[in-house]
Amino acid sequence: MDKTKFVLDEKDMPTAWYNIQADLPEPLPPLLHPGTKEPTILPPPLFVEALNEQEFSKERWIEIPEEVQAIYRTWRPTALHRAYRLEKALDTPARIYFKYEGTSQAGSHKPNTAVAQAYYNKQAGVKRITTETGAGQWGSALSFGCMLFGLELKVYMVKVSYGQKPYRRILMETWGATCIPSPSTDTQIGQKILAEDPDSPGSLGIAISEAVEDAGTHDDTRYSLGSVLNHVLLHQTINGLETKKLMAEQADVYPDIIVGCVGGGSNFAGMFLPFVRDKIDGTKPDLRIINVEPESCPTLTKGPLTWDFGDVAGMAPIAFMNTLGHGFIPPPVHAGGLRYHGMAPIICHLLKLGLVEATAVPQVATFEAGVTFARTEGILSAPETNHAIRVTIDEALKCKEKGESKVILLAHSGHGHFDLAAYDGYLAGRLEDYAYPEDKVKEALASLPEVPAK
Amino acid sequence: MDKTKFVLDEKDMPTAWYNIQADLPEPLPPLLHPGTKEPTILPPPLFVEALNEQEFSKERWIEIPEEVQAIYRTWRPTALHRAYRLEKALDTPARIYFKYEGTSQAGSHKPNTAVAQAYYNKQAGVKRITTETGAGQWGSALSFGCMLFGLELKVYMVKVSYGQKPYRRILMETWGATCIPSPSTDTQIGQKILAEDPDSPGSLGIAISEAVEDAGTHDDTRYSLGSVLNHVLLHQTINGLETKKLMAEQADVYPDIIVGCVGGGSNFAGMFLPFVRDKIDGTKPDLRIINVEPESCPTLTKGPLTWDFGDVAGMAPIAFMNTLGHGFIPPPVHAGGLRYHGMAPIICHLLKLGLVEATAVPQVATFEAGVTFARTEGILSAPETNHAIRVTIDEALKCKEKGESKVILLAHSGHGHFDLAAYDGYLAGRLEDYAYPEDKVKEALASLPEVPAK
Repeated sequence: MDKTKFVLDEKDMPTAWYNIQADLPEPLPPLLHPGTKEPTILPPPLFVEALNEQEFSKERWIEIPEEVQAIYRTWRPTALHRAYRLEKALDTPARIYFKYEGTSQAGSHKPNTAVAQAYYNKQAGVKRITTETGAGQWGSALSFGCMLFGLELKVYMVKVSYGQKPYRRILMETWGATCIPSPSTDTQIGQKILAEDPDSPGSLGIAISEAVEDAGTHDDTRYSLGSVLNHVLLHQTINGLETKKLMAEQADVYPDIIVGCVGGGSNFAGMFLPFVRDKIDGTKPDLRIINVEPESCPTLTKGPLTWDFGDVAGMAPIAFMNTLGHGFIPPPVHAGGLRYHGMAPIICHLLKLGLVEATAVPQVATFEAGVTFARTEGILSAPETNHAIRVTIDEALKCKEKGESKVILLAHSGHGHFDLAAYDGYLAGRLEDYAYPEDKVKEALASLPEVPAK
Repeated sequence: MDKTKFVLDEKDMPTAWYNIQADLPEPLPPLLHPGTKEPTILPPPLFVEALNEQEFSKERWIEIPEEVQAIYRTWRPTALHRAYRLEKALDTPARIYFKYEGTSQAGSHKPNTAVAQAYYNKQAGVKRITTETGAGQWGSALSFGCMLFGLELKVYMVKVSYGQKPYRRILMETWGATCIPSPSTDTQIGQKILAEDPDSPGSLGIAISEAVEDAGTHDDTRYSLGSVLNHVLLHQTINGLETKKLMAEQADVYPDIIVGCVGGGSNFAGMFLPFVRDKIDGTKPDLRIINVEPESCPTLTKGPLTWDFGDVAGMAPIAFMNTLGHGFIPPPVHAGGLRYHGMAPIICHLLKLGLVEATAVPQVATFEAGVTFARTEGILSAPETNHAIRVTIDEALKCKEKGESKVILLAHSGHGHFDLAAYDGYLAGRLEDYAYPEDKVKEALASLPEVPAK
């Protein structure tokens, strides 16, 4: 009998994160200061020194502190599953594996960095943290992380998701955090946006601006970002490292295709970075790494690679990334975690270098894929994850057409237990696709920051 | 570094269920036919032969079919955790372990029997199954099980829970089942109850009656019960067997106290039956096994041990069990899975023999314990499980008083991701305790079936 799932023993859990910056064929562009437009570190009023060091480090391996490892061990290592029933339902010769991050206490991959960030902030004497959240995955993960280290937390939650997902708020409150809908009246930027549009559904960009303003105006407070930045992607590599080890040592396979969803990019980068290294050094030239995003927020597939602010208000550093414009507010798709105008600079850089690829999918088709997954593998997946499942199924069906037995690895980022209203809508035929809002993007791209040529 | 959690490899998962009937010091009383009051098997129009054989078998080990094992392996074996952070927060010398069943696709222990029952029904050519559900744990687990084997399923869900937990319904529908609130107009018994009380909150007893009537009046349909019966407890022993193996082979401890919540009793019996065997044979005379129930539905602690119907309508077999009367409708506590008038005859028998004990706890204190657990171990537990957590904490605090380093094993039956409205109520101070409804129980106990003396 072939194995259904593969699990590392605790003692074999990786003890260092993998830093791709040690192996990039050309270095990342710098971050620029939003005011001076000069290269900058992460603003010290917002980030503690340890995280700043990780952001720019060129060390290949960064040790995971024992306190963080101890907490990781409460749910990690997570299992790699073989999706036999999905393969059978699709009648495909493809071999589908998925690494499932939904067994963490918060239900997704997000605690991998939440725990680490809370730890480093605690070490630096910080008392309080602010953050933003889209679908609520990040906010609840950081609530979990802050609870573990006795830190206060205030979460600005994108208003459309706050309304759609009340359970996420309650989860955060159960862990002791405060959660309010964004835009809010608690910050100047929130007040300004509400004055212009009282019905604003919010966006990750707006929520980031509010959390940044809050942290910047309170001495004991730092800000925490759940994706995009290099140190966040770094912390997520624990997942890719576990997967690579499991595939090599237990499943005895290497993926032909790796698929994951990208909003800010940390979930999928955490999975593929340890693998992309094999593409950089020429060991695995044919490995395909597919970033999947929503058609209604197609940052990698439609956004230019250029300089843009990380947030709506222009208070965050300027990054060189694919962007739809920092003023762009995506349609209210259920995959709230994918509603971000930009993308992790590391992913954009790898896309430019031809080391990864990207594709965009419409909302209804992702739920169709999610229901197929639920009715075969049993797991009710997050709407974000359904984007990756859609492409996994499509690639498996291509294998069927061509009679190829490829190994497809799906980065399964978490469960959808708090997203069932969206499934209800899908099953009742009420869910809709949103066209790519080309005009809005055009408008947003007209307001990019002016950055002097290097 | 001591280990945080203990996990068996798939290949070491038990391959047979443990049948306590082989080791009981005196045999179980029979089931009686609801009409003739003579000893009976489970009614063949309701149950397939394979399950009837298991119900009365005296074989110690019953092999788990390979098809069932294959599905178990999609989430089993589950992990045994050491609750270091809870121990620290309580400042107790007690060593607290918990076996966590919340990582199954349905989020609880229930799939252990749902998958087995669906398998045996499919083998017997059944096309459609009916069942009842309280909080929705069982209904969703059986939806998962039926989906795996291509069986139709209709779930009668206790109305108060149907209103409180819409997400559970959507989960069942996503897996392809039909779910309606009970009492319903789809059955004669439902119509009768609604005629008497249109606002009836429903109860497990009523829902059982409806599901039984439905199955009894459709040729291609069988009925499935998620707890109480011997074969259900049998299937759940996979959990206790895994735990016993993990404690002996990996953690190198044996429990002093085992704690679990009981509604029908299958979750906790599944855990403790492989251990109670050591008490029966005299190996572990001091082992304490504590059944925890709600103060508002105190079957084991207040109900007499006598003959009563399993359902409200008097259509199900008569069992010898502790009961609050089959007409008793418990207050609408959030732990819907514990709202049952009777109890598994195996547990009642062991209680009578002095091999297990029982205690009852009030609702608010269980949520207080649940929040403590969430703020230490991070897991958001089901309201049912919170009953067991309450007593686990109480026992750990007694250890602190006495300076004893006892090993406490908590049967953690599942997560509370669909119960967050209840947590919201608790955090907002809106949750209440329900007094033991003594008069209602007295009234219900006045209508027990008359059974001729043996």
